[in-house]
Amino acid sequence: MQLGMVGLGRMGGNLVRRLMRAGHECVVFDADAGVVDKLAGEGAVPAADLDALVARLQAPRAVWVMLPHGRITEETIDALAQRLSPGDVVIDGGNTHFHDDVRRAAALREQGLEYLDIGTSGGVWGLERGYCLMIGGEAAVVQRLAPIFETLAPGVGDIERTPARTGSVETRSAERGWLHCGPAGAGHFVKMIHNGIEYGMMQAMAEGFDIMRSASKPQVPAERRYELPLADIAELWRRGSVVSSWLLDLAADALAENESLSNFSGVVQDSGEGRWTVETAIEEAVPAEVLTAALYTRFRSRQDHTYAEKMLSALRFKFGGHVEIKK
Amino acid sequence: MQLGMVGLGRMGGNLVRRLMRAGHECVVFDADAGVVDKLAGEGAVPAADLDALVARLQAPRAVWVMLPHGRITEETIDALAQRLSPGDVVIDGGNTHFHDDVRRAAALREQGLEYLDIGTSGGVWGLERGYCLMIGGEAAVVQRLAPIFETLAPGVGDIERTPARTGSVETRSAERGWLHCGPAGAGHFVKMIHNGIEYGMMQAMAEGFDIMRSASKPQVPAERRYELPLADIAELWRRGSVVSSWLLDLAADALAENESLSNFSGVVQDSGEGRWTVETAIEEAVPAEVLTAALYTRFRSRQDHTYAEKMLSALRFKFGGHVEIKK
Amino acid sequence: MQLGMVGLGRMGGNLVRRLMRAGHECVVFDADAGVVDKLAGEGAVPAADLDALVARLQAPRAVWVMLPHGRITEETIDALAQRLSPGDVVIDGGNTHFHDDVRRAAALREQGLEYLDIGTSGGVWGLERGYCLMIGGEAAVVQRLAPIFETLAPGVGDIERTPARTGSVETRSAERGWLHCGPAGAGHFVKMIHNGIEYGMMQAMAEGFDIMRSASKPQVPAERRYELPLADIAELWRRGSVVSSWLLDLAADALAENESLSNFSGVVQDSGEGRWTVETAIEEAVPAEVLTAALYTRFRSRQDHTYAEKMLSALRFKFGGHVEIKK
Amino acid sequence: MQLGMVGLGRMGGNLVRRLMRAGHECVVFDADAGVVDKLAGEGAVPAADLDALVARLQAPRAVWVMLPHGRITEETIDALAQRLSPGDVVIDGGNTHFHDDVRRAAALREQGLEYLDIGTSGGVWGLERGYCLMIGGEAAVVQRLAPIFETLAPGVGDIERTPARTGSVETRSAERGWLHCGPAGAGHFVKMIHNGIEYGMMQAMAEGFDIMRSASKPQVPAERRYELPLADIAELWRRGSVVSSWLLDLAADALAENESLSNFSGVVQDSGEGRWTVETAIEEAVPAEVLTAALYTRFRSRQDHTYAEKMLSALRFKFGGHVEIKK
Repeated sequence: MQLGMVGLGRMGGNLVRRLMRAGHECVVFDADAGVVDKLAGEGAVPAADLDALVARLQAPRAVWVMLPHGRITEETIDALAQRLSPGDVVIDGGNTHFHDDVRRAAALREQGLEYLDIGTSGGVWGLERGYCLMIGGEAAVVQRLAPIFETLAPGVGDIERTPARTGSVETRSAERGWLHCGPAGAGHFVKMIHNGIEYGMMQAMAEGFDIMRSASKPQVPAERRYELPLADIAELWRRGSVVSSWLLDLAADALAENESLSNFSGVVQDSGEGRWTVETAIEEAVPAEVLTAALYTRFRSRQDHTYAEKMLSALRFKFGGHVEIKK
Repeated sequence: MQLGMVGLGRMGGNLVRRLMRAGHECVVFDADAGVVDKLAGEGAVPAADLDALVARLQAPRAVWVMLPHGRITEETIDALAQRLSPGDVVIDGGNTHFHDDVRRAAALREQGLEYLDIGTSGGVWGLERGYCLMIGGEAAVVQRLAPIFETLAPGVGDIERTPARTGSVETRSAERGWLHCGPAGAGHFVKMIHNGIEYGMMQAMAEGFDIMRSASKPQVPAERRYELPLADIAELWRRGSVVSSWLLDLAADALAENESLSNFSGVVQDSGEGRWTVETAIEEAVPAEVLTAALYTRFRSRQDHTYAEKMLSALRFKFGGHVEIKK
Repeated sequence: MQLGMVGLGRMGGNLVRRLMRAGHECVVFDADAGVVDKLAGEGAVPAADLDALVARLQAPRAVWVMLPHGRITEETIDALAQRLSPGDVVIDGGNTHFHDDVRRAAALREQGLEYLDIGTSGGVWGLERGYCLMIGGEAAVVQRLAPIFETLAPGVGDIERTPARTGSVETRSAERGWLHCGPAGAGHFVKMIHNGIEYGMMQAMAEGFDIMRSASKPQVPAERRYELPLADIAELWRRGSVVSSWLLDLAADALAENESLSNFSGVVQDSGEGRWTVETAIEEAVPAEVLTAALYTRFRSRQDHTYAEKMLSALRFKFGGHVEIKK
Repeated sequence: MQLGMVGLGRMGGNLVRRLMRAGHECVVFDADAGVVDKLAGEGAVPAADLDALVARLQAPRAVWVMLPHGRITEETIDALAQRLSPGDVVIDGGNTHFHDDVRRAAALREQGLEYLDIGTSGGVWGLERGYCLMIGGEAAVVQRLAPIFETLAPGVGDIERTPARTGSVETRSAERGWLHCGPAGAGHFVKMIHNGIEYGMMQAMAEGFDIMRSASKPQVPAERRYELPLADIAELWRRGSVVSSWLLDLAADALAENESLSNFSGVVQDSGEGRWTVETAIEEAVPAEVLTAALYTRFRSRQDHTYAEKMLSALRFKFGGHVEIKK
């Protein structure tokens, strides 16, 4: 099948590579001509600009935009919409807010264009492992592009089947690693929640290892002060424990490299989905204690001291004469 | 090798079965004679009481106690201590607080007895998958009982090796599913943290699915109200996503059976380790926001309404004349 | 001074009464003719509709809208805008989101109209105690209406002066209970934060009393199980303690009436500002752990059981065979 | 009345001064002879050591120990117990854990000695405002020392009476600022909760001001970016708002001195009661989200970066190739 790809960064480039390996034809464009050339050298059809990309694709076209969320994605989709024809499909595979998908899908539909929002999980591992695809949009459009999704997704693989599942795996694409989640926005909604859960699971693991490492602190009474072998513990839990997970596999790897993690400072960014998850929980009046706490630890990690902490110090001084003891 | 087992409930019985399959001899006792008979029928050596159990084992003996934590475990270990001889080993494989291990190990050492505390993860799946064993105590004693641990543990299995790991898997038992974590209490400490992390990961997942399910609530504006296919989403994430985990596998199974989860009321118990994890974090002055929040949601789940909530209602009425709108 | 008031509910009606007591002329309108009549009986100038209200006011007019936030406020302001003349002022004294103020102020300015957003705290007590006013908008407009604000605000009263304050209280209106906080939206922003803090303080107090009341639970060891005199404790803390506060005064009153609070079920509403506070914190990347936790306890109070809790039960059953123990 | 005071720091010294002003006789001892001399110069009876102090008091004696909680208090009470006679009373006015009170009261009772645990709130302001006293122990002993408590407590003062209260203020000491809360430990229990609530209220206020201050951050869209007058806002809320409180009075003072709070670094200690409050909540299975979050922000404030944060950075690098962007 033929697909246009706009944005050839770490994600976009590897999506193209995985598609080409399976024989799909990819027409590619990026603002950086160097990466276009590189992929052309690997078999992709290069396009010098959006006009060239659209011209090179046969109608009904499908163009996957894989750019950082925000203005650049918005502008690119607008530019594409001016060049595409009724029946063509625009795919936003980035981390767009589902509110924007809803708005955009309605606007494009007025021009006769189709829109799919696809949450794409897989990171630097996706080229080999496959990408987990969460798709929002019209069912017929999703169906039309199924060959693309089958290639990008991990497939059934050697993962043991869920016991309560019945019927052929051919009938439900979820077992092959891609899913039509619902109408416009549903794909990015599910991806957003995925990332929210990811934040929470990461933080749960991180706190647990922090408590284990802090078991060696001098303030702990000597008879129950432990120097725990953290790398081995992470490794151990990979087998037969309730917390077995891909994140644990990665923790085991990071700890095997450097148990002190001293190669990291602990300044932790957040990519947006964690915030949107919390905002959505609030709109729905769902208490999301853990996902929110996980987000806040990241905010806190990026400041030396909060103004809130200074106010605590000020109040303690005012009511009790407590003077700060510096670290 | 020979092992005594006291307590033949779901965990103790299956530990014995897994050992016997590998040719170990198990001498077994339980207050319920029926379960002793049952295991005897499967090849175990039955003992009518602790005296008989001790008499049937050859010195140096090893007796594994697998009982609910608390008084019953404490009394059983005391009773065993009176019957055992210097050089014998008592193993507490239950969910004992590591403070109790520290105290007990010191007391038993005065009698010349050895003590191992073993955190045992695996639940109803351990018989087939193997048990992840976290062990505290003297290194020499752990070494002596290594054949038992090799049998109970899952082994290397088909789990991909952690990339940063080097050397033979024979040299580090963690890769085979059991680990000597440190001196007395270290085994149960690590198991405690394991369960704390488990609480946090479960809650992260639970909140995420709650937000997805609540996306269909009537208060959400119609254009972004979704009926998301939760069972399929859980299934999807099992492949290629960052949240892949055994807990997700189980969620996928539960949702495939009944997506509404209406077979559960949501009254959630906690087994102690979550509380101890938080108490330990506080002793160490480690902020454990997520693990604590996960614990508190369980406390809350067991009450119709808290007194705190009534006080909020009372205050709102007092300052604003707000009258409660009943659910 | 002359003021139009639209919306004569609990808040609007008492604002009018407090103004009239000081000799201001109030022209009043409400969709409910009964409340218009009632206030007319107390000295207000009744208006049958917005046209009449506008006609009765002398330019430059000032019309205070005191309605529930959302559509009704929006529509009323639109309707007023069509009737007012350049130089007139519209005041939104309700609990509007500051984003809406920013948008509205800009739209009205295009018509030559002025806009003030006023966060109004005081509840059922404001008529006697005065209203704490947080005002956003143009400085000149605020200045023009100062006589209104001086009347509505509590004034200096018998509250001890803040030691670090210098100069005459005439120079800073904050000491008299009203404040120009900044440009459009700033008034409702400050009121929003006020309510967010209120949520957090209420929850802190509520949790503390819950822990005290739960000290009598049977699971607490007998030697440290207490039946604490909660009403007297609240009363006690009103004098000389760090937690002295108006909320504590109200708690003392509620507990003196009924220490068990059994007249309340504990279903707790939230009025919007708590949510907006958290959303604003997220936009600013400020960790707001306590304000958010306080909001979530209200969400939780309104459900029998969350879907998240059911998922915890389901997972516990799946990995450990744990069956729910009903309450 | 006569009272012995051991420990003449900020709290102990001022308790003595307030008692002497009302004509009570105070026999005083401190390890620092200088402070003994100083108080002797103000009218106290100096004692060179505990023997002298006990000898100078008439039976039945009452000795108030006002020392930092922990070993020094424990040893001092042991030393006093060896010197006192049946019927004498030992008072621990410090911040002792109520578990220790329960144990101590039982031990002293075996020697015929009485024990009161008194939580004392008032800080640097108590000398003038009076101390809020929360008392645990035998009712008869509390009654015997009532004249001391009446003097130390703030008294009815000019605080408005709680509307639901009836009867003479003479009948309930809570309205005069001291209270017999229950048997041994109850006084320190109530003080512990008081401080727990204090942490929560402080954090609520601190977060609110942080969000207001952060409204001027460059990442906030310009049209709703505010430079809010924080000192004036705190002042404003002191009149007629729901968050009026002594903590707000102090915040207003601190902000009036230096709105940026740049004289504080934000390293915030915790004095123990916050931790004990959370541990008690956990023992009682009471969800204490806000009080716990308030405690954790203090833990976090004392670290440059947590190990947990480094693990988040490590995991993000492993699954997504994300490299930390330094602050």
